[in-house]
Amino acid sequence: MQDRQRQVITSVEACLTHTLSRFGDSPVAQGMRYATNGGKRIRAVLAMESARLHGIDDAQSVFAGAAIETLHAYSLVHDDLPCMDDDDMRRGQPTVHIKWDEATAVLVGDALQALAFELVASPQTSDDPGVRADLALGLAQAAGGQGMVLGQALDIAAETAASPLTLGQITALQAGKTGALITWAALVGPRMARADQTALKTYADALGLAFQIQDDIIDVTGDAAAAGKAVGKDEAAGKATFVSLLGLGEAKRRAQTLVDQACNALSIYGSEAETLQQLARFVISRQM
Amino acid sequence: MQDRQRQVITSVEACLTHTLSRFGDSPVAQGMRYATNGGKRIRAVLAMESARLHGIDDAQSVFAGAAIETLHAYSLVHDDLPCMDDDDMRRGQPTVHIKWDEATAVLVGDALQALAFELVASPQTSDDPGVRADLALGLAQAAGGQGMVLGQALDIAAETAASPLTLGQITALQAGKTGALITWAALVGPRMARADQTALKTYADALGLAFQIQDDIIDVTGDAAAAGKAVGKDEAAGKATFVSLLGLGEAKRRAQTLVDQACNALSIYGSEAETLQQLARFVISRQM
Repeated sequence: MQDRQRQVITSVEACLTHTLSRFGDSPVAQGMRYATNGGKRIRAVLAMESARLHGIDDAQSVFAGAAIETLHAYSLVHDDLPCMDDDDMRRGQPTVHIKWDEATAVLVGDALQALAFELVASPQTSDDPGVRADLALGLAQAAGGQGMVLGQALDIAAETAASPLTLGQITALQAGKTGALITWAALVGPRMARADQTALKTYADALGLAFQIQDDIIDVTGDAAAAGKAVGKDEAAGKATFVSLLGLGEAKRRAQTLVDQACNALSIYGSEAETLQQLARFVISRQM
Repeated sequence: MQDRQRQVITSVEACLTHTLSRFGDSPVAQGMRYATNGGKRIRAVLAMESARLHGIDDAQSVFAGAAIETLHAYSLVHDDLPCMDDDDMRRGQPTVHIKWDEATAVLVGDALQALAFELVASPQTSDDPGVRADLALGLAQAAGGQGMVLGQALDIAAETAASPLTLGQITALQAGKTGALITWAALVGPRMARADQTALKTYADALGLAFQIQDDIIDVTGDAAAAGKAVGKDEAAGKATFVSLLGLGEAKRRAQTLVDQACNALSIYGSEAETLQQLARFVISRQM
């Protein structure tokens, strides 16, 4: 997994550097580069491994990989805004609205969202225009008001709700907030090869939920230096999380079970799916 | 033009009502409906008339029309935010962050941008997947950091610039801020019919510039009740505008010349282009 992750990071960063060089040197362009820099690139690994599993070369799948990282970066920039989560640090660096200002952060996020669609819809992504249209449609659905934005809205509503969320409500929240983009990334391969999506969908749904449970675990057990962002925020805010509802031990067990399910779903691909299985295990071992 | 405008308004609103009914009833979904309600629908008229001129039925072009109105609505919601233009009123109603709050306004804008791409990339928009991918690619380029967002960034930079912008700089600013979406809308027809874009590109470039000059004229001569938003803001802020640089008389003459150029560019379409020519004339006669 780590070798592949390094490979993906190198390709995605080369693609983003090349793409963003067209945007000049305004504060918004600088902020776009800054916000897409660094990170674990888990979504890009998912996208490009799912593509490789379907015989698609990195040279083509890198655009989908860069697109999902771009879209993820936009969501972080807006999520960190004072009116949203109000975070000063991200990946160990000042957030965009701290380094520049709020207006720049709004525009950086807006421009990054548009760029994600530009990347998937561009002819480089696939020779098949039907694939490009399908990737764009799927990305719009995953990112929008029935996907990621819905999850964020539910998250904000939860902060002022009279009673803490139930497990079902938190699961629905995470399916939007984290799950939708993870699922889109995992389906890049079958989408690009016009192949069956079933196994990777099962994998992605389990992985997305495990991912969010681990995020909640890190918020309780992690330290800010390792995580590169503030921790302990959910507990301080009295928010219901997988950990507060299940307890730490059961949350860990639940995440492990989900990762096992995710790995089993890929058995039909044989040893070719090893990196994706390692990635699932990495998701619940990470401390950031 | 008015009959056609009413027709377009009816189709686009039916399409948006139907599309947005899927988004539930959260504050974000309510805000999406609220923000896409009303307005002159000039961009949708452009898109659907350009399509009709190329033999494409309203029943298909309405999705592109709804998409450009959705994208325009997102840009207004974010533009009105306190950290951006800080406007309390829009189309005679409280802006989204006043009626709800800033976080909701950020998310409403984000979800509307995604929805615009969902609309153009969806199979209803065209039977030809190449057309859908091309519409999505063009929309992403028009909306993003080399199009509309670039124009907004230049606009913000102008507010703190040491010296007022020159005419060339304001023209570049508007080409992004207003021009890029107007051009995308005007090219919907040739894109959907895979026809030559030259005449409509000339028309749209002139129209976009005339549109912005008229906006500056309204900011000086208009009253807030007719405009449905605050006026006199540019002058109060000491911002350079087409009016401050050219004088009111010359600004009006310049807008008229641009509209004449726009109308002439469509002569190859004969009387079929009458509505688009009327629309160009409407743009410089409007008071809101």
